[in-house]
Amino acid sequence: MILTVTANPALDVSYRVDELRPGQTHRIRAVHERAGGKGFNVSRVLYDQGVPTLALGPVGGILGDSLRADLVDSGVPHDLLPVAAATRMTIAVVATEATMFNEPGGPLSTADWLRLAGLVGEYLPTTDVLVCSGSLPLDAPDETYADLVGLAREAGVPTVVDAGGPVLRAAAEAGAAVLKPNAEELAAAVGFDDPLRGARLLKEAGAGAVLVSLGADGTLLVTDEGEWRAAPPYPIAGNPTGAGDAAVAALADGLRRGLPWPDRLALAVTWSAAAVAAPLAGMMDADTLAEIEGKVAVVPL
Amino acid sequence: MILTVTANPALDVSYRVDELRPGQTHRIRAVHERAGGKGFNVSRVLYDQGVPTLALGPVGGILGDSLRADLVDSGVPHDLLPVAAATRMTIAVVATEATMFNEPGGPLSTADWLRLAGLVGEYLPTTDVLVCSGSLPLDAPDETYADLVGLAREAGVPTVVDAGGPVLRAAAEAGAAVLKPNAEELAAAVGFDDPLRGARLLKEAGAGAVLVSLGADGTLLVTDEGEWRAAPPYPIAGNPTGAGDAAVAALADGLRRGLPWPDRLALAVTWSAAAVAAPLAGMMDADTLAEIEGKVAVVPL
Repeated sequence: MILTVTANPALDVSYRVDELRPGQTHRIRAVHERAGGKGFNVSRVLYDQGVPTLALGPVGGILGDSLRADLVDSGVPHDLLPVAAATRMTIAVVATEATMFNEPGGPLSTADWLRLAGLVGEYLPTTDVLVCSGSLPLDAPDETYADLVGLAREAGVPTVVDAGGPVLRAAAEAGAAVLKPNAEELAAAVGFDDPLRGARLLKEAGAGAVLVSLGADGTLLVTDEGEWRAAPPYPIAGNPTGAGDAAVAALADGLRRGLPWPDRLALAVTWSAAAVAAPLAGMMDADTLAEIEGKVAVVPL
Repeated sequence: MILTVTANPALDVSYRVDELRPGQTHRIRAVHERAGGKGFNVSRVLYDQGVPTLALGPVGGILGDSLRADLVDSGVPHDLLPVAAATRMTIAVVATEATMFNEPGGPLSTADWLRLAGLVGEYLPTTDVLVCSGSLPLDAPDETYADLVGLAREAGVPTVVDAGGPVLRAAAEAGAAVLKPNAEELAAAVGFDDPLRGARLLKEAGAGAVLVSLGADGTLLVTDEGEWRAAPPYPIAGNPTGAGDAAVAALADGLRRGLPWPDRLALAVTWSAAAVAAPLAGMMDADTLAEIEGKVAVVPL
């Protein structure tokens, strides 16, 4: 089973508009709400692929109730931790491109973090891979994911971490099995702007492997067994939100199944492309998935 | 007592950003929530000026609970009608100017509208002036405010209506004592773009008087006793949201106190200017109020 932790869930609200006009009033015709959070998206992708998964995360307040209801509707197995802090909201204003407004979320108390760690601990004996994904609430310690990586290591469970900056660096030092930053998150972790050198640095710091999504430039994977680059066979048009979450789901599933590294990379690129072609984060387009499967070129560096 | 009806309340959420950048992600540092709705703002202004007032409106769902809590905090007397439809949200993204995203709200059932009318009826015996203000929820009949105007007339209570389009026109035909559209709302009601001619048309249709806010061009008042134009003694910088609500509050208070029409117009322009100088809708800046009082020139047309 793949256990996902979303440290800073959100109720994602989206408004479709013809055009975003700064300074003007927009009358919204339809409102869409959805349980949001990168770990939840990872679990959605795995659940749709028939991979056993369980999603954990702290929720509170009235928006937390809405989030829980949406997760129940989705069918994705979950065990949400009730906390005092009200769950945050994100607003996506969608025209030809999406404009995001992300509330900060939190803060959680030390007791909340200990209860979350306790909940993770309860599930570790039946967990194949732990995933820690997404931003942290206000005032959360940089070691939040690193502590969970340590807990999982003691139980012999590898962890995939999708985060950025000091949180990513701490997870590397704690010995995460795989890190999956984008180029910007990686640069914020290492302090410079060279993805290959940055990935190598985080591996030397303690991570088992580092996969970096470079957008149109493909995806980079640095491991002890080799370094590769891969890209889909043709450019995929669509919605890049959630592409990273699909890549994390693929990495976790590749770890669980013991695939060789180049195959894990190919799977991450394939699922990521299928997610771009799907309208919502946490979904993959089945046609794209079938079309691309086996056609991702993986090239050693 | 001045009874206000807000047919389509909202929880107003505001995000302050340095700059609104379409297509980008904005990390919001602080979130402000407030009970929103034009009738509520009218009651806030009256309550702060020591004028007896009571605010009515339908509320539902989890955001309705937040709205109620904020209204309780504000001290403004209210009697909210619980309905099944979830209270809507508006998002204001505030940089140097505000960009608004307004959810539609509703829909309410016929039974809900009858219960709201019943609630208004209960308070009419102790009401001096009724105020009907703001947009209607999805699928609400254009006669929603007109019906309340009729109910109030039967009880000998004059009504001030702040609305636009067919809703405003129906209120005129029902014999509202005063209409207060802005130029755009008036044009949508009469089908052409000449505020003076439009105001006269709505008076002929049945309204007692029509006050039209023209922004920088001042304010126009058309009555049976005469027609006037007025403006503040100097331009007021600030936030125009809520200026119309302060004008409605002044008109209602002028009706209640039996002021002559030119004095009602002067009061509406004064309160409106003081509202522009205040940071939030439903508030007036005390210094501006004191400075402008008695200095608004009212000119017969």
